Amino acid sequence: MNSFTPTKDDKFSFGLWTVGWQGVDVFGTAVRPAMDPVHAVEKLAELGAAAVTFHDDDVVPDDSTRGQVLERFTKALADTGMGVEMMTTNLFSHPVFKDGGLTANDRQVRRYALAKVLRNVDLAAELGATTYVLWGGREGAESGGSKDVRAALDRYKESMDLLCAYVREQGYNIRFAIEPKPNEPRGDILLPSIGHAIAFINDLADPELVGINPEVGHEQMASLNYAHGIAQALWHGKLYHIDLNGQHGPRFDQDLRFGAGNLREAFWTVDVLQGSGRYPAYDGHIHFDYKPPRTEDEDGVWETARGCMRNYLILREKVNAFRADPEVAEALAAARVAELNEPTLAEGESLADLRGASYDPDALGNRGLGFERLDQLAMEHLLGVR
Amino acid sequence: MNSFTPTKDDKFSFGLWTVGWQGVDVFGTAVRPAMDPVHAVEKLAELGAAAVTFHDDDVVPDDSTRGQVLERFTKALADTGMGVEMMTTNLFSHPVFKDGGLTANDRQVRRYALAKVLRNVDLAAELGATTYVLWGGREGAESGGSKDVRAALDRYKESMDLLCAYVREQGYNIRFAIEPKPNEPRGDILLPSIGHAIAFINDLADPELVGINPEVGHEQMASLNYAHGIAQALWHGKLYHIDLNGQHGPRFDQDLRFGAGNLREAFWTVDVLQGSGRYPAYDGHIHFDYKPPRTEDEDGVWETARGCMRNYLILREKVNAFRADPEVAEALAAARVAELNEPTLAEGESLADLRGASYDPDALGNRGLGFERLDQLAMEHLLGVR
Amino acid sequence: MNSFTPTKDDKFSFGLWTVGWQGVDVFGTAVRPAMDPVHAVEKLAELGAAAVTFHDDDVVPDDSTRGQVLERFTKALADTGMGVEMMTTNLFSHPVFKDGGLTANDRQVRRYALAKVLRNVDLAAELGATTYVLWGGREGAESGGSKDVRAALDRYKESMDLLCAYVREQGYNIRFAIEPKPNEPRGDILLPSIGHAIAFINDLADPELVGINPEVGHEQMASLNYAHGIAQALWHGKLYHIDLNGQHGPRFDQDLRFGAGNLREAFWTVDVLQGSGRYPAYDGHIHFDYKPPRTEDEDGVWETARGCMRNYLILREKVNAFRADPEVAEALAAARVAELNEPTLAEGESLADLRGASYDPDALGNRGLGFERLDQLAMEHLLGVR
Amino acid sequence: MNSFTPTKDDKFSFGLWTVGWQGVDVFGTAVRPAMDPVHAVEKLAELGAAAVTFHDDDVVPDDSTRGQVLERFTKALADTGMGVEMMTTNLFSHPVFKDGGLTANDRQVRRYALAKVLRNVDLAAELGATTYVLWGGREGAESGGSKDVRAALDRYKESMDLLCAYVREQGYNIRFAIEPKPNEPRGDILLPSIGHAIAFINDLADPELVGINPEVGHEQMASLNYAHGIAQALWHGKLYHIDLNGQHGPRFDQDLRFGAGNLREAFWTVDVLQGSGRYPAYDGHIHFDYKPPRTEDEDGVWETARGCMRNYLILREKVNAFRADPEVAEALAAARVAELNEPTLAEGESLADLRGASYDPDALGNRGLGFERLDQLAMEHLLGVR
Repeated sequence: MNSFTPTKDDKFSFGLWTVGWQGVDVFGTAVRPAMDPVHAVEKLAELGAAAVTFHDDDVVPDDSTRGQVLERFTKALADTGMGVEMMTTNLFSHPVFKDGGLTANDRQVRRYALAKVLRNVDLAAELGATTYVLWGGREGAESGGSKDVRAALDRYKESMDLLCAYVREQGYNIRFAIEPKPNEPRGDILLPSIGHAIAFINDLADPELVGINPEVGHEQMASLNYAHGIAQALWHGKLYHIDLNGQHGPRFDQDLRFGAGNLREAFWTVDVLQGSGRYPAYDGHIHFDYKPPRTEDEDGVWETARGCMRNYLILREKVNAFRADPEVAEALAAARVAELNEPTLAEGESLADLRGASYDPDALGNRGLGFERLDQLAMEHLLGVR
Repeated sequence: MNSFTPTKDDKFSFGLWTVGWQGVDVFGTAVRPAMDPVHAVEKLAELGAAAVTFHDDDVVPDDSTRGQVLERFTKALADTGMGVEMMTTNLFSHPVFKDGGLTANDRQVRRYALAKVLRNVDLAAELGATTYVLWGGREGAESGGSKDVRAALDRYKESMDLLCAYVREQGYNIRFAIEPKPNEPRGDILLPSIGHAIAFINDLADPELVGINPEVGHEQMASLNYAHGIAQALWHGKLYHIDLNGQHGPRFDQDLRFGAGNLREAFWTVDVLQGSGRYPAYDGHIHFDYKPPRTEDEDGVWETARGCMRNYLILREKVNAFRADPEVAEALAAARVAELNEPTLAEGESLADLRGASYDPDALGNRGLGFERLDQLAMEHLLGVR
Repeated sequence: MNSFTPTKDDKFSFGLWTVGWQGVDVFGTAVRPAMDPVHAVEKLAELGAAAVTFHDDDVVPDDSTRGQVLERFTKALADTGMGVEMMTTNLFSHPVFKDGGLTANDRQVRRYALAKVLRNVDLAAELGATTYVLWGGREGAESGGSKDVRAALDRYKESMDLLCAYVREQGYNIRFAIEPKPNEPRGDILLPSIGHAIAFINDLADPELVGINPEVGHEQMASLNYAHGIAQALWHGKLYHIDLNGQHGPRFDQDLRFGAGNLREAFWTVDVLQGSGRYPAYDGHIHFDYKPPRTEDEDGVWETARGCMRNYLILREKVNAFRADPEVAEALAAARVAELNEPTLAEGESLADLRGASYDPDALGNRGLGFERLDQLAMEHLLGVR
Repeated sequence: MNSFTPTKDDKFSFGLWTVGWQGVDVFGTAVRPAMDPVHAVEKLAELGAAAVTFHDDDVVPDDSTRGQVLERFTKALADTGMGVEMMTTNLFSHPVFKDGGLTANDRQVRRYALAKVLRNVDLAAELGATTYVLWGGREGAESGGSKDVRAALDRYKESMDLLCAYVREQGYNIRFAIEPKPNEPRGDILLPSIGHAIAFINDLADPELVGINPEVGHEQMASLNYAHGIAQALWHGKLYHIDLNGQHGPRFDQDLRFGAGNLREAFWTVDVLQGSGRYPAYDGHIHFDYKPPRTEDEDGVWETARGCMRNYLILREKVNAFRADPEVAEALAAARVAELNEPTLAEGESLADLRGASYDPDALGNRGLGFERLDQLAMEHLLGVR
């Protein structure tokens, strides 16, 4: 039996802000002390993670101790064999960003924000991170008159184009990944879903350098199916990174550990990431972006980190068993799932052939598709009763 | 005082299936008799609409009476001066489409669906419709194993590419518009939001021929801000058509008359459509896609049609007054809304200039933005108390 | 190993309208032929169900064949050993109920509706049903002015009081169960949640005769936790019946088979129904109210019926294993779950004792609660990896 | 013309925590300095409010300065003529309450919480507050195993019963009001809606002493209609207090100023509060519980406070005009709204009369109800175009 114990080959990574979350929310103060990033790196390594990620502010103070702090941090990475696979900028905590960073109405704020990103991109390159995430949680509005969305998209594009040009120019091995979110903390956030972000990227000067970093909970806050969303992102070649966690539909951003929330969608999420049919697997890091609930002390924090990885491994094993099951293969055939790979117009056919054919819609409509049997098989694999 | 009575110059249009909705829902049977399309055209003309739109099945029976029916219908159009500005295909009512049309697993169904679209595109060209909408309400899934989303997008693209090629080849003056929807009737629908649809369009063979037809309620079912959504669509040059109605957030598709539901977002929707600042107005038809509630008899149906147009005109007047109000201009300036039009990097500047500058984030963070005052002014225009 | 094959002792029951659903929705026509209720009874018996339930209109035509139809139906029940455990009235399909039944503005409609209920209550008594459900799907409004909610509650109460008096008078062994729903088909439905219904019942003349029949999906459409809801209902002694199915949060009423949708909440639902700690189990029928998706033919219909029961049995086994696991017991103790059973004020204590005591909130706040470890154990039981 | 300037007779009140909110959220730090409660009282008085409300922690430090602070605060109240109409306890900010106060698993926490409430109830009595609110934002759970809901309700009831007994014993002129909320900060909160809270209250030892304090946004987070909810609460005689603000459906708790969010529902909310038809008006304070957005400086804070009151007055005027409009009266008659006041069974009638009558459901079903015309009239009053 699989022990579901992760190794570095599983490529699990964690934001330092996840295990380090102190529990401050709108209604309450910190329940846990600040966590030393070095301690976090050591513990995550011990639990089987391969890499960490962070915002500039999570690790690097903007003062004279910066060098020393970085040295100690990189030593911890070296000692544990952990990588920094992704980095990102905190453009949301400080009051200066209350109306956004790259799309703040105030031009001075935009300049400050962009400078902050650039500085940290240099650090990302230095530390070997190959993905640079932009989560624009404060890029948005609470009211209709305060933000011209089209102007905001102009400025967003300006920033992204400048950042891409900079990375090219410096020769950094870095790609950007935009993380969509529909709302919270802003009333409505720009680029609210996977789709909006990919659409936006297509209009950038250097679209190859920019993809997305979709988070389970963010899509589900918009009632969207995360597995469908990342399938579309993969179809566009834009799934540059992922943020796994758990959520219970449209409500506040819960950031539960992976597996909690919509467990069945988590199964299909792993299925899509594994590659299905003719479509290749996602091969980046499996990154968790969640918050250990306030009810937990530090032991509970590590319990949740362990749970995220363990649940992924459990689901991966189940997905593989589902795909290997001959009865599933038969149900898939009955459901004609693979028939969707066949072009609607055969090679050599023209629309005239298709229009000239005769159809019996009533007979076609009577065919049962057997989707429920297939879904029940999947559920029984998930439940471990097959 | 404005009488809020529409004229053809207002370019209002209605789906024949809206006023013609008989009230069948999941829990109940028809409450109104079938409406003769000719009667609908006459009444809508009388109320001030400029055009109608329809699905093939709404008007044209697929039998020997087709010619006669069409003749009578086009005569009514001519008599009333009404146009057919948009047409679309019913790929959802018949059981044959229970797993979708263009993305059904069953290839025969896909072929039948595509043939049905093509036939109706010819009719659209004949009747002078310049927009052809595709609402893929049945393109989706209830369960994760039954549909390979990437294969489905391949087939969706195949169909769209074939349709675009056909329209080019025939020399039709027609553009396609995809109408996104997150769910209902399928558990999850492909291309669930404005963003997903635009992202998809960018990967088509002929993206210029394809835009979107976003519906108020569909975006709001996903907790998304419709005014933001169409602003992004305009930014991409993809707002080829619109469907206005009303909705109360994430729940079943309510299709209320325009103005009902989220009234404040309706105000900002009209504001975006009117063009704001440096951005041009939407200049297509103002199309209503709603359902007169089952509580209404035919009088109530016309009341709702009148209400849709009237509410649009009322909101348009209010938006114009808001934009012309000097106190609003002052509040906009205080909120630095126009400053977002200024490039973050001035002409001639380099990133080095920006990085080298010194910033005082605390001072910048202390600046109040005055968004609430601006929003209160908008609300008072909406309420008619200014 | 448990075969998860149901027997009559499991007390599973199905609405005849579930397996008999033909697939008519707002956007499409029937995909399956009408199902003979006798056939449904026979098949459900064969699959292991113990009882059926129905609306008057599902089985009994209001014409001269009524007697014959009933005779044939009761013979099928006798032949299969199936019971009718619950009955209900269709107060929603016919146009007469477009503004509701018992709370329609139109008094004649209310009288007709009440007469329809009474007639069917007699039949329920005759067939031995002990629960009579009222789902007021059309009792509600789309707009604020059209319905005085307080007057509507007066009329609702009037009807319930009359019904209770009637049942007492006739000596029927029947209790009523109100089924809450927040919206759909009406814009907003009266008594929208478990809580609203119980609150209402408390103000009836004969509250003992009336409880609730909460449906999984209906509560989840309002973002509410179903397991919490039925726990509160049990606390009030008001869980007279249940409707199990599946749903994906606030959207249209999906009526998926039990287990689909929020699987983790389904686990906790079965846990609550089994009784936990000092609280007794629910001992009524396990009733499924779902809709086999339109993609299914009749084989698929039976697949879904089988799946509902099978998933319940699987979850029941898992819940029992979870509750019997010594490591779970230890985690529950660490989480102080049972400590919540201890009165806050001990016997003999007064508030003065409690106020006079000294507390160390910081120390208390530092205690970790270990909820995540406990939840991970539950998840691993659910996934079958313990 | 009405100036929409509030006076003390309008009975507007504000939580000190509303204008005093510093803007700390899950993603960001304070944007405004702490506000001196005395300053808040003075400014609110100047703007036309009649009263303030507060949590113990908002005003009264638990240290040696307590007496002095209270003296200064009560002097400000006296100087401005402001009252304290409601008080409440902060059982959510400190880590000690991370698993709740009155229903925490940890009995010591429950004791500390209850002592904290009691101490503040004394202060409420001293300051003349007649309503004492309990918002149990931390009473709940993120996971199914960690909280036995039935045990939690036992403890909740124990606390409420003790509090009621204490208030009776002390002879305080205080009633309690429970404030429901579905989720946030806990994953699921106990007593999640108006209905659940009223149902719970009915099982208390002293139900007369306990009512509810429903908040607009909290109900709307559960997709529930607030106007319907308070109408039901009034029907039960349980609307002891209200919290007005704004929200955009199921998402994080936005706490927008009153009028923002669902404006049409705000209109109907004021309509219900004014009393409609035969039902009396709510006569308590009009209490605002909102958060000035982080984008605002102190000027913006007062702008939002002014806006809350102003919008209420505007809506009140519009509601009154709507109810006085003869065309509305006619539309109400056509919609048979008042007919719902007539008993379904006339005096002297028996069920036999009702069952023996003959009905023509088809004819009744054909009657149009004219609800849309009525709703359009309401909308035009709201928009100020009638």
